[in-house]
Amino acid sequence: MSVALPLQAGIEAISSGVNYVWILVVCFLIFFMQPGFALLEAGQVRAKNVGNVLMKNMTDWVVGVLVFFLFGAAFSAMIGQLTTPGLAFDPAGAFGYITDPGATGWIDWFFGAVFAMTAATIVSGAVAERMNFTAYVFVAVAMTAVIYPAMPGIAWGGTGLLSSNGFIGDALGVGYFDFAGATVVHMCGGLAGLVGAKMVGARAGRFDSNGDSQAIPGHSMLLAVLGTLFLAFGWYGFNVGTQATVLTAEGEFMGAALGRVVLNTTLGMGAGGVAAMVVSAAWQGKPDPLWTANGLLAGLVAVTGAVPHVTWWGGILLGLITGALVLPTFRWVVDSLKIDDVCGVFVVHGSSGAIGTILIPVFAAPGVLSAGVGTHLAMQVIGVAVIGIWTVLASIVVFGIADALFGLRVSDAEEEEGLDSSEHGISAYPEFVGDSGAGSPSSAVSVDGGRVETDGGVETDGGDNE
Amino acid sequence: MSVALPLQAGIEAISSGVNYVWILVVCFLIFFMQPGFALLEAGQVRAKNVGNVLMKNMTDWVVGVLVFFLFGAAFSAMIGQLTTPGLAFDPAGAFGYITDPGATGWIDWFFGAVFAMTAATIVSGAVAERMNFTAYVFVAVAMTAVIYPAMPGIAWGGTGLLSSNGFIGDALGVGYFDFAGATVVHMCGGLAGLVGAKMVGARAGRFDSNGDSQAIPGHSMLLAVLGTLFLAFGWYGFNVGTQATVLTAEGEFMGAALGRVVLNTTLGMGAGGVAAMVVSAAWQGKPDPLWTANGLLAGLVAVTGAVPHVTWWGGILLGLITGALVLPTFRWVVDSLKIDDVCGVFVVHGSSGAIGTILIPVFAAPGVLSAGVGTHLAMQVIGVAVIGIWTVLASIVVFGIADALFGLRVSDAEEEEGLDSSEHGISAYPEFVGDSGAGSPSSAVSVDGGRVETDGGVETDGGDNE
Amino acid sequence: MSVALPLQAGIEAISSGVNYVWILVVCFLIFFMQPGFALLEAGQVRAKNVGNVLMKNMTDWVVGVLVFFLFGAAFSAMIGQLTTPGLAFDPAGAFGYITDPGATGWIDWFFGAVFAMTAATIVSGAVAERMNFTAYVFVAVAMTAVIYPAMPGIAWGGTGLLSSNGFIGDALGVGYFDFAGATVVHMCGGLAGLVGAKMVGARAGRFDSNGDSQAIPGHSMLLAVLGTLFLAFGWYGFNVGTQATVLTAEGEFMGAALGRVVLNTTLGMGAGGVAAMVVSAAWQGKPDPLWTANGLLAGLVAVTGAVPHVTWWGGILLGLITGALVLPTFRWVVDSLKIDDVCGVFVVHGSSGAIGTILIPVFAAPGVLSAGVGTHLAMQVIGVAVIGIWTVLASIVVFGIADALFGLRVSDAEEEEGLDSSEHGISAYPEFVGDSGAGSPSSAVSVDGGRVETDGGVETDGGDNE
Repeated sequence: MSVALPLQAGIEAISSGVNYVWILVVCFLIFFMQPGFALLEAGQVRAKNVGNVLMKNMTDWVVGVLVFFLFGAAFSAMIGQLTTPGLAFDPAGAFGYITDPGATGWIDWFFGAVFAMTAATIVSGAVAERMNFTAYVFVAVAMTAVIYPAMPGIAWGGTGLLSSNGFIGDALGVGYFDFAGATVVHMCGGLAGLVGAKMVGARAGRFDSNGDSQAIPGHSMLLAVLGTLFLAFGWYGFNVGTQATVLTAEGEFMGAALGRVVLNTTLGMGAGGVAAMVVSAAWQGKPDPLWTANGLLAGLVAVTGAVPHVTWWGGILLGLITGALVLPTFRWVVDSLKIDDVCGVFVVHGSSGAIGTILIPVFAAPGVLSAGVGTHLAMQVIGVAVIGIWTVLASIVVFGIADALFGLRVSDAEEEEGLDSSEHGISAYPEFVGDSGAGSPSSAVSVDGGRVETDGGVETDGGDNE
Repeated sequence: MSVALPLQAGIEAISSGVNYVWILVVCFLIFFMQPGFALLEAGQVRAKNVGNVLMKNMTDWVVGVLVFFLFGAAFSAMIGQLTTPGLAFDPAGAFGYITDPGATGWIDWFFGAVFAMTAATIVSGAVAERMNFTAYVFVAVAMTAVIYPAMPGIAWGGTGLLSSNGFIGDALGVGYFDFAGATVVHMCGGLAGLVGAKMVGARAGRFDSNGDSQAIPGHSMLLAVLGTLFLAFGWYGFNVGTQATVLTAEGEFMGAALGRVVLNTTLGMGAGGVAAMVVSAAWQGKPDPLWTANGLLAGLVAVTGAVPHVTWWGGILLGLITGALVLPTFRWVVDSLKIDDVCGVFVVHGSSGAIGTILIPVFAAPGVLSAGVGTHLAMQVIGVAVIGIWTVLASIVVFGIADALFGLRVSDAEEEEGLDSSEHGISAYPEFVGDSGAGSPSSAVSVDGGRVETDGGVETDGGDNE
Repeated sequence: MSVALPLQAGIEAISSGVNYVWILVVCFLIFFMQPGFALLEAGQVRAKNVGNVLMKNMTDWVVGVLVFFLFGAAFSAMIGQLTTPGLAFDPAGAFGYITDPGATGWIDWFFGAVFAMTAATIVSGAVAERMNFTAYVFVAVAMTAVIYPAMPGIAWGGTGLLSSNGFIGDALGVGYFDFAGATVVHMCGGLAGLVGAKMVGARAGRFDSNGDSQAIPGHSMLLAVLGTLFLAFGWYGFNVGTQATVLTAEGEFMGAALGRVVLNTTLGMGAGGVAAMVVSAAWQGKPDPLWTANGLLAGLVAVTGAVPHVTWWGGILLGLITGALVLPTFRWVVDSLKIDDVCGVFVVHGSSGAIGTILIPVFAAPGVLSAGVGTHLAMQVIGVAVIGIWTVLASIVVFGIADALFGLRVSDAEEEEGLDSSEHGISAYPEFVGDSGAGSPSSAVSVDGGRVETDGGVETDGGDNE
């Protein structure tokens, strides 16, 4: 039977081929969450700050991938080493993927990178419309070098503090469930954003002299909803692709696992959208597209950690719960905490991720739990607490350093003028939006009106430049 | 030779792995048709109704997936059982995928769901700018629970009325050709939309006092064309992905089948766009982007049922025919039928689907036909008629019930005000579009102007809120 | 051991299945570069020319795929035959894919087509806002029939002038490195665009009476950046997908090759964006989103030919070099060459492609070079020169013929009016942009304002039609 060995080797190589085609494609979809976040946030800011939003989102990616390749991914591995009993601290090994990637080390790095950039880009939605761009670049570096990388380091890959092999997991006898990063990625980004929004302070006019909140409408519902749909598209890569093993090394097809993940992703987002639509209609009198979109996203976040672990009705319930909470929680952040979280990243990515992840044991599918529900619940609460505390403390330090080095905030005059003009010298829509001093938008059509080119400065007046 | 058996088992599992990676990815692309339809329709309505379009498109998805999971897919299976001689009516079996999905039942459901949501979302393009939102939600539920699900039930999967095993197919000795749903999906959506547009009635001002049509320009050509390109992207999933078997259970590679499908999809859309461009230039004097886009889509619809069955020049001819007809047919619907089908969904999805599907036997590739052309043509005409009659009758009933329960139409004042304000309390672009009572758009930049937030109501004035 | 043979056959079929799933998916991503280019260009033109941009981009695709199927791909094969010693000129063989595609001929054609359409659509960005549409259609036909197809004919597939088997490659003993088409696709498009921009002439007002350049701002930074992100998404298909062999016929997994390609694509775009951001901040005083986007694209172009051949730090350096050069090179084209290359396609696609490709031997990964660096450098310079000279000469001829037949340029009045109105009879945004004669945009909301429908002509006035 001398054929048996080459045959087996062949199956393992073929399985790798299938799995890595899948992994690469889902990575590309996850990359597509970058334009999704860019539009979601751009739609929710005023036109005078759109270019700044786009700049921040591009920066997250172009700076972030370099930082995460040269340092962040290695930092993640080192954190895993340091928080797992029996593992030696091995910096050289942690950095080994750079120079000695083996057959798949660079694809694996890329797979990690698209998750890291997702966490990083969430932050900008909270601090939009008033944060100093240089300070933001510093924060983006810190997010992709340290703040986020620690999270997969402690939670994923079978090593690290929260894994069943880590210090806490080992003590409790169970590992932390967070499949695709409801807390590792989304809550990390959402809490970092909340800290940033608090430390940067509210936008001018967001709260009146009595401290009551005043709406500052974004400039395009269309962009916000389109960004939401882009995110849902990318999320199929994010969630379903985290089931990265389609075929095991022995050639077993993991269809049932893939099926549960894609079903719960779909039902969670559906239920989240429906619940938020109903709540918005009850709360405001009419069903609201932006809250429906936010509910859809909250449902997605809620099931992101849970998709392979919970029943189909558990997936629906997680979506319903977090979708229903999205509007009240946002109001609580604004009206009680008095924090100006522009895009609601705390509720969409933070609290929804925490709730969905903590409740996994309650809705667990048969065979998922290896210990009692209480033990698993304890592990989930501890895991959320560890990730939350790390993110909040690290974010306070990072935003604090950014404040000391660059100042977190633009001046009042710059904020009033708009960050596109003050931070980047451009006007995003020179023909459409004038200011009160320049003639009507109509006049912008007949003269060259406002895109920054290198020929010279561009005023936001949109009516006359050069 | 004891290795033969595990080897064969290994090939079957590997083939499943390859096929389901393919299926999942094409499903994600088909999902991307949702933002495609949202933009195509949003671009063709006035700015005051954009939020309503987005709301309807999100509703199709978030409500539709829940309905199609809990009922629609099972209804489809039951219709198949009832219209196939020798099949027992087995409701428990029809609902079995929910609780007993086996290895791939939930992926298979998702594969069906993305087609169902496509059919559902087509409807909204016909009834835009004046339909009651609550009534629309009711119609969306009916589309995903009953109207659409009956169609794959009778036509696909080897069972059902029109299949070679169904009552009609069995009688004629041939099955109905509609590979990816030119009629099952697109004509179903297009006819339901036409019925809706007729029953809801024309928009105010669409026909003057003499009954002559008056153009109501949409607010963004860019969004309409961008949506078209998104749809084309998703359509590659829709059409090529319907060739779901890349490797057979025996390990045979289906390259030639995939090649014909991707070629005819590409040539059909190319020819449709070219024909419509030429006809629009002849008809209107200048080549028109929107008609080119509609022709591209009509060509895609026309070949959707035909891609694996026709020659490459058949694919081109189907595109040329339907692309050339798109403008004249639209005029006929508006000017002769006096129906205000806002986005032309009847011609793009309805008549193009019917024509392309009926003509399959005429352009059949060698080996496709199992009987005479006449027999196959008869089956195609019957199939189109059955699907058309079902869709029209079921739509009349559903829109009629919606009318009785909720009223199909907003009031004249609400229509004039715009559905964004009257149905959802928002303004999609608060800084860009003012109304005649509020100052110029310029002034909207210097005050907070109009996005609905939960801080309170938002006027469409775009100039002052709270 | 009679099982050995069927097993081996099985592995080859399975490998084909895996590879072609991958190829089809990356083709779909590359198709998505079409909306990417459409938005990138639309954002950089004035609102009055947006519809024309969209029309040109749709035309590239719908006309191009027909031309490339019926002629272009065959022309490419014939050029390969004519420039390879020992190959017979065999037109019938070159056209054979049309009628005798074998198992994968039509997928292979599609794989070639999406690259061809990318080259074609680059041109329109250079000649925007003033070129006669009919002349443009002629150029698009020539690009997809002749100008571009000659390039893969001489450089790719192991045959042709620059391959190691072609006349030049054979003489030097090494083949030309251009993996995914930095020069074959991008430089070809970029140079054709530069020639077109020169021959069509600068837009009115682009240079003042002293010959000094005057900025003509585009109408939407958001669309330009969004298009950039779409292109980056599609580029993952373009670059990583060119590593089309995931599994060899013997079942070997090509993970390391895929990993290097995806890593260098990611690092190259990151470094390009960072370098351009820094240079724009130094040059203009503030970091500029549009230059950051152009730098990201320049970095992508630079590594497109190099991704499998260079080290990871080589990928970063190629991005840094070309990203840093993007702004100065654009200024040189405008201020010294006095060419009005609207979207900067020469620097983004042309010079960046040339630089990145020439430098491949300098940054070569171990084992890549088969001869001395000098020999390879000579081959790279010769290859760039051959592709450049062919493209420039062929473009001069094609634009010259177009000028003789149709005139390259619209009239001054038509240019002033905008090409949307003069060439297509439409207004892209009838509610948003009025002209100085029609009331404010506000008034466009209360009347039907400007989308071309077939009901009649549409004026760009946006205020009254029919």
